[in-house]
Amino acid sequence: METKSENACFGGVQGVYTHASKATGTDMTFGLFLPAEARDGPVPVLWYLSGLTCTHENAMTKAGAQGWAAEQGIALVFPDTSPRGEDVADDEAFDMGQGAGFYVDATQDPWAKHFQMRSYVTEELPALIGAEFALDMERQAITGHSMGGHGALTLAMSLPGRFRSVSAFSPICNPSASDWGRKQLSAYLGDDDAVHAAHDASRLMAERGFDGPMLLDTGTNDQFLDLLMPETLAEAAAKRRQQSILRLQPGYDHSYFFVSSFMEDHVTFHAEALYAG
Amino acid sequence: METKSENACFGGVQGVYTHASKATGTDMTFGLFLPAEARDGPVPVLWYLSGLTCTHENAMTKAGAQGWAAEQGIALVFPDTSPRGEDVADDEAFDMGQGAGFYVDATQDPWAKHFQMRSYVTEELPALIGAEFALDMERQAITGHSMGGHGALTLAMSLPGRFRSVSAFSPICNPSASDWGRKQLSAYLGDDDAVHAAHDASRLMAERGFDGPMLLDTGTNDQFLDLLMPETLAEAAAKRRQQSILRLQPGYDHSYFFVSSFMEDHVTFHAEALYAG
Repeated sequence: METKSENACFGGVQGVYTHASKATGTDMTFGLFLPAEARDGPVPVLWYLSGLTCTHENAMTKAGAQGWAAEQGIALVFPDTSPRGEDVADDEAFDMGQGAGFYVDATQDPWAKHFQMRSYVTEELPALIGAEFALDMERQAITGHSMGGHGALTLAMSLPGRFRSVSAFSPICNPSASDWGRKQLSAYLGDDDAVHAAHDASRLMAERGFDGPMLLDTGTNDQFLDLLMPETLAEAAAKRRQQSILRLQPGYDHSYFFVSSFMEDHVTFHAEALYAG
Repeated sequence: METKSENACFGGVQGVYTHASKATGTDMTFGLFLPAEARDGPVPVLWYLSGLTCTHENAMTKAGAQGWAAEQGIALVFPDTSPRGEDVADDEAFDMGQGAGFYVDATQDPWAKHFQMRSYVTEELPALIGAEFALDMERQAITGHSMGGHGALTLAMSLPGRFRSVSAFSPICNPSASDWGRKQLSAYLGDDDAVHAAHDASRLMAERGFDGPMLLDTGTNDQFLDLLMPETLAEAAAKRRQQSILRLQPGYDHSYFFVSSFMEDHVTFHAEALYAG
């Protein structure tokens, strides 16, 4: 693992690190914020999964999360959204291929060789950071934005016991029924609808739900609302009686101005779960 | 108008008053909390509509709202849930007739003669209290519990411009599709589904929504969840992109222990809307 940069930040350290990934067969870069408390011992971990076109860097620089994480004594992990490189398959569309891994393990050519983002984010990277940094991997929570909201929700529901709480900003809620999802899931995983269902937050909610608290924020002026389909997840969560807070925020759009506006709420929400019991 | 009681309460006055109602053709009793600020001039008004079997008194004594209203300088109105008396039609069921007016103007016998609760709550009582007390009727908001949540939501959506904000605790969300609603709406209003739709929060949400903020709380252990159907309103609100906060609160039931636990949030929510602009 190579340290790309480390910057003092809200009393802690915002680092960027690169390592050779077995899961993706490429070098992978991630951001990690460690609060001051990590100097004295392991701290809880909040994962932030980013959206389409993003790298590890977008949220790290624009989401305004570090200040609130510092206040709560929580670490933040910012993984990349796909494998990258000249030898890695890609697509002309901004929403396919590099920058658009959708947090699944691809089974179809040409994607299967490198696009193993689920294994990377849920197995390889946790093992690495748990070994290298002062992190309490028994206390993890997860959030994300847009495609990363999809990632946070689907990983949280499909890995019971892993995450104590889940939240999302403007998540893709029903990818198997949306142009943000159908194309990508078919390309990465094939056309079996049962396979798509396992990576669809609304359908996972209907099927199994999440054993913990859930917080969702979406802007009423989000320019991608018809692709996000918050109504399907809202219905499924209410029908299941899922412990949840579902908010439609008036006037906000899909940008990081929106994400940063509500970041305090999300970090505080996760801190309550991470420090309980 | 006759004063039944007035009690010092959180620096203000909790009163109970009776008057002869033209709308219902009966005497009607209501509770009114006036904060200290009402001594100096008109204060904003938050209506609280109660649920099945309740009178004006239940919320007044068990919801714990006065302390928060006092902190915000807001008046609280607690109407009764139906006309009452030996000459007034009734039903053996707890959820029909007296104590179960559903906030509609009945058109069917034997109910039409006295069960005019919509006119009472939206016309006669506002005119009366606006004339008799230091209330700023340009600043009104509305909340309620169960059947009263149904009332708050349907009145707010069907009277655009009247209420600046609306909230509800465990509201009946889809009465035209529920055993808490179908029977009553048919008895009071006849069997025309289009008429029922005008008194159904989920269908009003789909049809027109609410021009302002909305807050809903329902307990995940509510014993009446299948009758309340929060999922229909959650879906409709999300589909419309209604400015809203929809919460499922883990472990809470349908009781006033639930209502009182979240009353601070609701009063604060309404205060923000009432004092804006």
